[in-house]
Amino acid sequence: MSSRHLAKGSRAPPSAKGKLRLYSNRFCPCAQRVHLVLDIKKISYDVVYINLSSIPDWFSSIGKVPALETETGDILTESLIIADYLDEKYPQHKLHSNDPLQKAKDRLLLERFNKVIHTMYKVLLTSARSFTDEPEETISEGLEMFENELNNRSGSYFGGSKPGMLDYMIWPWCERADILKLFGNQYALKKDEFKKLMEWRGFMLLDEAVQNNFLDADTHIRYVQSYRCGIPDYDQILAH
Amino acid sequence: MSSRHLAKGSRAPPSAKGKLRLYSNRFCPCAQRVHLVLDIKKISYDVVYINLSSIPDWFSSIGKVPALETETGDILTESLIIADYLDEKYPQHKLHSNDPLQKAKDRLLLERFNKVIHTMYKVLLTSARSFTDEPEETISEGLEMFENELNNRSGSYFGGSKPGMLDYMIWPWCERADILKLFGNQYALKKDEFKKLMEWRGFMLLDEAVQNNFLDADTHIRYVQSYRCGIPDYDQILAH
Repeated sequence: MSSRHLAKGSRAPPSAKGKLRLYSNRFCPCAQRVHLVLDIKKISYDVVYINLSSIPDWFSSIGKVPALETETGDILTESLIIADYLDEKYPQHKLHSNDPLQKAKDRLLLERFNKVIHTMYKVLLTSARSFTDEPEETISEGLEMFENELNNRSGSYFGGSKPGMLDYMIWPWCERADILKLFGNQYALKKDEFKKLMEWRGFMLLDEAVQNNFLDADTHIRYVQSYRCGIPDYDQILAH
Repeated sequence: MSSRHLAKGSRAPPSAKGKLRLYSNRFCPCAQRVHLVLDIKKISYDVVYINLSSIPDWFSSIGKVPALETETGDILTESLIIADYLDEKYPQHKLHSNDPLQKAKDRLLLERFNKVIHTMYKVLLTSARSFTDEPEETISEGLEMFENELNNRSGSYFGGSKPGMLDYMIWPWCERADILKLFGNQYALKKDEFKKLMEWRGFMLLDEAVQNNFLDADTHIRYVQSYRCGIPDYDQILAH
């Protein structure tokens, strides 16, 4: 959290050969997924933050975050693929279920989550229009599915008695839930309808990896506002 | 291959409890992926073909193919998630690499393949327009990446000395490559530019699972033409 996002004109940081390196951005929820997995597994890694609105030339061949540079210099992209890779390569604190059926069900839930929330988040970032163009499923329908799912599972987390892959993979968007207020109160979450999810959110906030990567609602809102004005302020947390 | 595609008004087939059941469609490339995995692993299963332009009421809660009903009655959808599930649950003839990095790289290649070819195929099916609206990458660029990849790998297949998950997951679209001719000769594959891939295609055609699920170019073209006329002929191969 200590270094600025590197932009066009910056120099490429020296090679981290032999150490994992994550190319990231402090406000990218997909990158946050990977930070969470690395932190939970207590894997030592190097971070390079990238300014996504002014991508450095030396980064253009990769071009997006999150991107993981492995110890062997291979580059992996796509947060879910990186997360699965880390879970297989570093078996400590296993995040996926060992039961193939449960794992497949969780991956399906995640796909549905991606479709609903991810799209909403993009709408939020890319324009000031309202939710009239909203995708097939509304946030509420999506959350209802997750509320029911939590009710049907034993334990406080999707992973059971502790957070698992599904918990951490959906977390970054849940951390940002309050930015929905930006659209007006009618879009704010009806918290009493999602009792179990709100309880889950409270438990997740106690998690060490979640805390390590946490930014509060005001910070997220300031970022979204700066983004929508065309000058995303990736480094705002350094100035505070 | 012996039964008709069930449509609205059909009766639900009796439960297959205790046996895997695949809800499929003879012309869906994603469903073909799952048939391939089941056949390679010599898993016994029941097939129910669904008429996708007239989905039976009893199937509406699932609503899409491929859908796998497990021995416990759980339903899984999404071809890649089903394929990964089967590869973990039935470890005979393992399709994914045991090396997490290689597996992640193959999954990334598959993502790129999906973006290029899958979109093209949709364009082909859903309208008679030409490739002026084509996605960022052209088929040729996509194939070039795979050609280079095959050149860099040892063995004739992406999986090495025998076909692996990546080989089977891209196969259904490669089987259908000749339907590109429908757009005119300028879209037909320039086979001499993709020497290694053409060689690969020849080897894949010798594979037993590929043969079991193979339909020739004329059959695929007849299907695409019927689909584009608004009356997809899913059962044409029964009439021959």
